[in-house]
Amino acid sequence: MDAAALWQRYQDWLYYHEGLGLYLDISRMRFDDAFVATMQPKCEQAFKDMAALEGGAIANSDENRMVGHYWLRDPDLAPTPALKQEITEALDQLEAFANKVHAGEIRPPQAAKFTDILSIGIGGSALGPEFVAAALAPEAPPLAIHFFDNTDPAGFDRVFERLGDRLNSTLVIVITKSGGTPETRNGMVEAKQAFADKGLDFARQAVAITMPGSKMDDLARSEGWLATFPMFDWVGGRTSELSAVGLLDAALQGIDIRSMLAGAKEMDAATRVPDLKANPAALLAIAWYFAGNGKGEKDMVVLPYKDSLLLFSRYLQQLVMESLGKEKDLDGKTVYQGIAVYGNKGSTDQHAYVQQLREGVPNFFLTFIEVLKDREKPSVEVEPGVTAGDYLSGLLQGTRQALYENQRDSITVTLPDVSPRSIGALIALYERAVGLYGFLVNINAYHQPGVEAGKKAAAAILELQMEVVEALEQEGAPLSLPALATVLGATDKTETIYKIVRHLAANQQGVVLEGNPSDLSSLKASLS
Amino acid sequence: MDAAALWQRYQDWLYYHEGLGLYLDISRMRFDDAFVATMQPKCEQAFKDMAALEGGAIANSDENRMVGHYWLRDPDLAPTPALKQEITEALDQLEAFANKVHAGEIRPPQAAKFTDILSIGIGGSALGPEFVAAALAPEAPPLAIHFFDNTDPAGFDRVFERLGDRLNSTLVIVITKSGGTPETRNGMVEAKQAFADKGLDFARQAVAITMPGSKMDDLARSEGWLATFPMFDWVGGRTSELSAVGLLDAALQGIDIRSMLAGAKEMDAATRVPDLKANPAALLAIAWYFAGNGKGEKDMVVLPYKDSLLLFSRYLQQLVMESLGKEKDLDGKTVYQGIAVYGNKGSTDQHAYVQQLREGVPNFFLTFIEVLKDREKPSVEVEPGVTAGDYLSGLLQGTRQALYENQRDSITVTLPDVSPRSIGALIALYERAVGLYGFLVNINAYHQPGVEAGKKAAAAILELQMEVVEALEQEGAPLSLPALATVLGATDKTETIYKIVRHLAANQQGVVLEGNPSDLSSLKASLS
Repeated sequence: MDAAALWQRYQDWLYYHEGLGLYLDISRMRFDDAFVATMQPKCEQAFKDMAALEGGAIANSDENRMVGHYWLRDPDLAPTPALKQEITEALDQLEAFANKVHAGEIRPPQAAKFTDILSIGIGGSALGPEFVAAALAPEAPPLAIHFFDNTDPAGFDRVFERLGDRLNSTLVIVITKSGGTPETRNGMVEAKQAFADKGLDFARQAVAITMPGSKMDDLARSEGWLATFPMFDWVGGRTSELSAVGLLDAALQGIDIRSMLAGAKEMDAATRVPDLKANPAALLAIAWYFAGNGKGEKDMVVLPYKDSLLLFSRYLQQLVMESLGKEKDLDGKTVYQGIAVYGNKGSTDQHAYVQQLREGVPNFFLTFIEVLKDREKPSVEVEPGVTAGDYLSGLLQGTRQALYENQRDSITVTLPDVSPRSIGALIALYERAVGLYGFLVNINAYHQPGVEAGKKAAAAILELQMEVVEALEQEGAPLSLPALATVLGATDKTETIYKIVRHLAANQQGVVLEGNPSDLSSLKASLS
Repeated sequence: MDAAALWQRYQDWLYYHEGLGLYLDISRMRFDDAFVATMQPKCEQAFKDMAALEGGAIANSDENRMVGHYWLRDPDLAPTPALKQEITEALDQLEAFANKVHAGEIRPPQAAKFTDILSIGIGGSALGPEFVAAALAPEAPPLAIHFFDNTDPAGFDRVFERLGDRLNSTLVIVITKSGGTPETRNGMVEAKQAFADKGLDFARQAVAITMPGSKMDDLARSEGWLATFPMFDWVGGRTSELSAVGLLDAALQGIDIRSMLAGAKEMDAATRVPDLKANPAALLAIAWYFAGNGKGEKDMVVLPYKDSLLLFSRYLQQLVMESLGKEKDLDGKTVYQGIAVYGNKGSTDQHAYVQQLREGVPNFFLTFIEVLKDREKPSVEVEPGVTAGDYLSGLLQGTRQALYENQRDSITVTLPDVSPRSIGALIALYERAVGLYGFLVNINAYHQPGVEAGKKAAAAILELQMEVVEALEQEGAPLSLPALATVLGATDKTETIYKIVRHLAANQQGVVLEGNPSDLSSLKASLS
């Protein structure tokens, strides 16, 4: 395509949202008019499906649930007045709580004010809050945030060390829909122990965000925690950033949550427009469809050219991959759908792997996230007439050009700045694009049937661990791995038993493993 | 495969390094004996090629360079006594410098001791230091580290805010082989300005790590910086973590760099063994080959089950993708090689995208990084007989099982702990695996011809920016984008000119863009 035609194509496809100052450019995805023509009717159907979903239809049929994260940003759209009221009340209460914490009206027993947050959650209860904290928290926030987003003991210890004596002014926020997520439960247990070790009253410094009536809700109420905020049945974990899950952390850090919601609401409205070229989420969805042939054949590499957006692609991994990574379509056909997402930030990642992107295996398409505003204050010149921000901008354009010349396609999303409003809009844009893409490829984007298998297998391993310890207690004498498996009636699980014993032995948990570690048949396990 | 056969396969393929306490398991890659038989002769050739490279052959023929990062860990292997001496002297000097900084013998003019490091570098000059700092730095290090690893003005500002008044006790380390990397130069210019703004003497707080005789070297010497440490011609950026690039930052943070080097040396020795089953790097390389059919057809998802190893996959992205992502093989044939790498940490990522990994598009293989030691102190029980670390271990095993049942292959690397010794070994393991894989697929793993294109295009854009500003100065009256392009004699670059003007206008850099932003033909640019 010659320069004039490419400039025309750029103008033809450039989407601009005036209220948000946001641009979307899919001109460097090399689709043709025939492709657009085939997508038009599919998009029209997807718009209808999405409208039904937003109207309160049971969109997640496997789980018999409505899908309503959109209502959080525009409660007038909630399907019943009662739901509307629940949403607005929860938000008002959350905001009032944050204000009282800032004012010192809600304070810990042993300090004048809360200084830190320990946010305990995983998956959708961590990725959004972490992304938003990195993007929007001021450098000196009213409360500094720390996360438990795993069940790594050394990870817990590192956060405790960092908090040090400020544990007595740390507000603990436990985020779990059901209370049944083991990583979150483990983090809570460890935090309670740390509080007890310092003679602190955990309940007086703890808040729960959970489903009303859940195990967690019961616990928080029975122990007299400071407050409980609701997670709604109709909000999935990966679309919960603009519910209490994300907003309490954000408000406490001094981030303007009403602006986040307003940005999302405005983007929601823009992405309801049932017209492909006027709907940025639909444009994104067809660009993804084109890239991967509607089958996820290409990875989505996401590069925000802004340090503060470093965690956007980690956030997107869940939103995109958990939503779209499905074995079956809605007709029960085996399809192995999904789109792999990765990326950190530009121009940094250019120095890591643009070599492969430009010259290597062409198994991806790129999404550049551009931010027009460089910084708050004026810039020094790094050479005459040129600032560091000009370089950042030039490197983005240059990389896009160099990749295009080598037949590597890219999308560019341009934000005016990194602000609560534009981040709210960005989240809403991708939420809707994922939903529309789900309809385009005929899958349920709102369930996650595959995540249970690993959890169940883990639970079985922990049960086996208890049996291993019990068997070693009863046997007394050291046992070889096959002998131990035989005693347990689990000769099909010798490898698992070996790993359980190896891990226990490495952590002085009462088990000893003797013999030559490189010859597993020589190993004998016993209690110390 | 039944349980007994799988247990036998596990034992047959389990690699164990006694000195390092490190295991490698490729039993869950579903290759068969025939595959191994075809790889045997290829591996034998790769071992010979690698031996020649380590002996000082010109391995990077395009750039006429030796490849010698192995000598850093075992200077006795350097091809000449002069090289050996250079290596050992540089290390001794670096260590002496760090000790003097710790002791306050080398100190900033306006404070008793250095308290912080500002490490300025990008790509290989940042990814290793960042990974090692996250993995190994104590929670209260002698000097706390901060990074400039980009040219984002807001990113610079954030670090300056964090440093605040401690800028007067911050040691700046500028890491650049040639001095020609613009992001690093920009970071240095911004840092110099920040020092000047506070009346601080930059040179008295600055150190350079660069090639002797480079532009950067000249600058540091002429300005009288505190010290300069060498980067060697025969060490590429992505294998420079165990040179001064990584070791100075590490030593200053109180990390035992001699142990890192010792771990790497021991792994280097183990991965020189010319016997596939006794060589963990060769085992990794054939597992990658199997997964992607020797063509990178599957992505490498890397999940360390340890918070402190979060940045390992970012480090690996450069090591693997820049080394292997090549258009041409050594015979000049177009091959589009590479392996895409991504991942953060387990079990966290299970809650983000195991849904897709288990059920979705099967375009990947997994690498689990397991760490046997949970933490330093004893663990509380999160339920009777079970610790948080038992859960982490169970979740890893359970996920591996659940994925295998769905025909998703995985490799498991098991480390005894996260220590300088095991991290040195891990780095060396992957360095060698990448090198061997490069030989297996017949590419030069040591150059990066594709990274220049984006940089050159960026430079051209910055030149055009100067011309745009000059033209607007001369014209006076507002110009449409096509008119501006015509004046510049660059009608083929109208889109680029538009973006330059849009970015300048967004940053009060003297340019105004009037008109309707959604109709590019209505826009007119002028100077304010």
